[in-house]
Amino acid sequence: MSSAESQVTQGIDLSGLVGAMVESYQSLARLKHIDAGHLPSRDKVIELIRELRHLIYPGFFGRQNLKTHELEKHVGEMLKDVHDRLYDQVRSAIRHHQQRTGDNTCADCDVTAAAVTAEFMGRLPELRRVLATDVEAAFDGDPAAGSTDEIIFSYPGFFAITVYRIAHELHVQKVPLIPRIMTEYAHNLTGIDIHPGATIDEFFFIDHGTGVVIGETCLIGKHVKIYQGVTLGATSTRDVEQLRGAKRHPTIEDEVTIYPNASVLGGGTVIGRGATVNGNVFITQSVPPHTRVSVKHPEIIYRNRPPREFTQDYSVGRT
Amino acid sequence: MSSAESQVTQGIDLSGLVGAMVESYQSLARLKHIDAGHLPSRDKVIELIRELRHLIYPGFFGRQNLKTHELEKHVGEMLKDVHDRLYDQVRSAIRHHQQRTGDNTCADCDVTAAAVTAEFMGRLPELRRVLATDVEAAFDGDPAAGSTDEIIFSYPGFFAITVYRIAHELHVQKVPLIPRIMTEYAHNLTGIDIHPGATIDEFFFIDHGTGVVIGETCLIGKHVKIYQGVTLGATSTRDVEQLRGAKRHPTIEDEVTIYPNASVLGGGTVIGRGATVNGNVFITQSVPPHTRVSVKHPEIIYRNRPPREFTQDYSVGRT
Amino acid sequence: MSSAESQVTQGIDLSGLVGAMVESYQSLARLKHIDAGHLPSRDKVIELIRELRHLIYPGFFGRQNLKTHELEKHVGEMLKDVHDRLYDQVRSAIRHHQQRTGDNTCADCDVTAAAVTAEFMGRLPELRRVLATDVEAAFDGDPAAGSTDEIIFSYPGFFAITVYRIAHELHVQKVPLIPRIMTEYAHNLTGIDIHPGATIDEFFFIDHGTGVVIGETCLIGKHVKIYQGVTLGATSTRDVEQLRGAKRHPTIEDEVTIYPNASVLGGGTVIGRGATVNGNVFITQSVPPHTRVSVKHPEIIYRNRPPREFTQDYSVGRT
Repeated sequence: MSSAESQVTQGIDLSGLVGAMVESYQSLARLKHIDAGHLPSRDKVIELIRELRHLIYPGFFGRQNLKTHELEKHVGEMLKDVHDRLYDQVRSAIRHHQQRTGDNTCADCDVTAAAVTAEFMGRLPELRRVLATDVEAAFDGDPAAGSTDEIIFSYPGFFAITVYRIAHELHVQKVPLIPRIMTEYAHNLTGIDIHPGATIDEFFFIDHGTGVVIGETCLIGKHVKIYQGVTLGATSTRDVEQLRGAKRHPTIEDEVTIYPNASVLGGGTVIGRGATVNGNVFITQSVPPHTRVSVKHPEIIYRNRPPREFTQDYSVGRT
Repeated sequence: MSSAESQVTQGIDLSGLVGAMVESYQSLARLKHIDAGHLPSRDKVIELIRELRHLIYPGFFGRQNLKTHELEKHVGEMLKDVHDRLYDQVRSAIRHHQQRTGDNTCADCDVTAAAVTAEFMGRLPELRRVLATDVEAAFDGDPAAGSTDEIIFSYPGFFAITVYRIAHELHVQKVPLIPRIMTEYAHNLTGIDIHPGATIDEFFFIDHGTGVVIGETCLIGKHVKIYQGVTLGATSTRDVEQLRGAKRHPTIEDEVTIYPNASVLGGGTVIGRGATVNGNVFITQSVPPHTRVSVKHPEIIYRNRPPREFTQDYSVGRT
Repeated sequence: MSSAESQVTQGIDLSGLVGAMVESYQSLARLKHIDAGHLPSRDKVIELIRELRHLIYPGFFGRQNLKTHELEKHVGEMLKDVHDRLYDQVRSAIRHHQQRTGDNTCADCDVTAAAVTAEFMGRLPELRRVLATDVEAAFDGDPAAGSTDEIIFSYPGFFAITVYRIAHELHVQKVPLIPRIMTEYAHNLTGIDIHPGATIDEFFFIDHGTGVVIGETCLIGKHVKIYQGVTLGATSTRDVEQLRGAKRHPTIEDEVTIYPNASVLGGGTVIGRGATVNGNVFITQSVPPHTRVSVKHPEIIYRNRPPREFTQDYSVGRT
């Protein structure tokens, strides 16, 4: 800023505001995180996802041109790095959670964090096996896919599923905060909102994906395919406290396809094996296996519309 | 690039293209910004949002492990930093706007920018008070919320509301360009598109949020809750010039809930206090207070669908 | 990590896991990219988009305060930089594609990459001319637009169209992987999913945009305007292999407007010149020119809803 410019603002006195802000920090309990220990860092959790992606898809992301003979050394380094980053964040999350619930000693926190981290790391090969089924499902499910490489590189649905499967492993181990930070990061990037608590089996494919919502207590089988704008949600959110923990979201059995912008709602709703739910269907009841559910689309009205004026109306049925 | 590789491209002659590009820069008025002064920087506006988030939610973002005794010093530094960044961008935006409208002297621009910045800074404690009500509304409204910390850390709806409330303060003071850059940044990250001109009262909650559109002239009361895919929009956008400035978007009174993918359209449409608009409702008329509006969902058609062939059709009513 | 903390984890033995990961890398063909050559880098493709945006909209992004007398030198440098970055990525993509299809010599790959890059660069002035029509369409189409600068700076629809038009030029030249990485990057940021293979004429405007899907084989005319949640998609994706390459997505003629959340599906569906498709319409049939298509919205049901209990039901028709 030039000296001429700074003259306009140099006299600004922020001292009164400092006091008001300090008072605000101390008084609003919901927004207060002063004198508390370390929290997990959203930025570091996001870096961790990047590193995990390098580890899970070597050669596609991160270091290029990887050769077999150097693989072992490279993997060893990546595993150590991911392990340490994950331990650090899990430990912060567990310590923070214990403090919030009144346990300030947190005697077992570090041991628990180490055990959770080790358990997660040990599951990485199985995680890769399942993600390979998801790539296959995407290639088999999308006529626009040029190659499986294209899917790994650029498909938002595949990215969201990768992050969900990572987050779910941590959710299962009851790690606080981090799973949701992870899936909301994927939600940011893809518009696909999968709660880390959802249970999703192999060969899962989400095409386009923007607007997809998959609720916390969903159960989803193998070879399920869903499109943009699909909500697998709850029917009502009244009596919120009573609903915490209850099964509020549907069950989708194996080999079900759900087309764009359909809503399937309710904890007791089961879409049976091999069923298809067509676009824009809104359903709160169970569907038997091997059934195609479509909506009788509302009548369409055609009106003649010469540029900038309307003259004639006629309505025709829609087949 | 190795020398072998560069042989392929080293002969490339871009000189003809330089002339064509310069001509293109000079001739297309809509895309021209040569010989003009400073514009606000999108990247710097985004950094400013990050800094404001550190200031508004200390301990959650930015510096960790903040203690009471150092709070005053830390707040003072953050306030100064945010103030200077904001002044810089507001000044650029005002100067740019004046130049575009033919005022090249811009005699009062710096003084106006300083006054706008000071006014904004002074409203920060009140902004925090209102945002604390939004956190509370999110926790009370979502059975999947594990804690209020989780909401502050990871809920996209809460992030979009934070950015909207910041941008709205600048919009009210008629700052050009910056409010929209801010809300479109949140739109990028969350899929939630709130125009900075909308007026939204306390205890506002958006769940999931992808696809939400809240138009420029909406009026929204207290304790309103909306879900993914809800549009609060205009009925038509013909005669664009005539519509600039008019009330084109609905009024939502206190304690209204609007479920996923509903559209509420029109400047004269009022959703009365305590009303509920169910999922997928498309409405262009006012709704009386304490009314639940649902749509008679179209008939659903079930067809037997043995794998890869269809044999039998039957249609059943939907309750 | 302090020494006390590291005691908890220092004994961790990851050596068993290294072997399991190496085995996993070698065995899952879909996720394997070891001993293969360079792939394009997603991060570098994204940087390239940023540089192209500086080149296409000078003064708005990148270097500020550009003067006429320095324009030629600045453009020359930018062109060279973009050219070299693009050549590098196109070359990797072509080489990778040839290797995947069994051609390891790739004799013509570098020459092809150079030719593709030169062709792309030469089309930049025309690309700018077309993008200027898109800015104009956005300003003319949106009553909330304060200025064309605001559109260039912050409108997600305009960003998505910019990236699509860049990616489409590369798609036409059959560059593998990169076009889709580009459009999926825009999809990440905007929620607007335009396949690089779609053909879209001048004066195109997408308002709000979240949830928009424009399929690979769409043909879209001049002065077309679409809103958030619109799908221009396929009717079915069964028999995926048979569908690769077929026209599966609709044709939208000149001067068509499609309002929010409408779905227009099918490769044989043509929306005639000057037609309007209203919000929430779901259509799989052609529409004649100058016709307004609306849906007979399903009956709305109003129920009295005193706070926390329901007493009375009544149903009224909807005009």
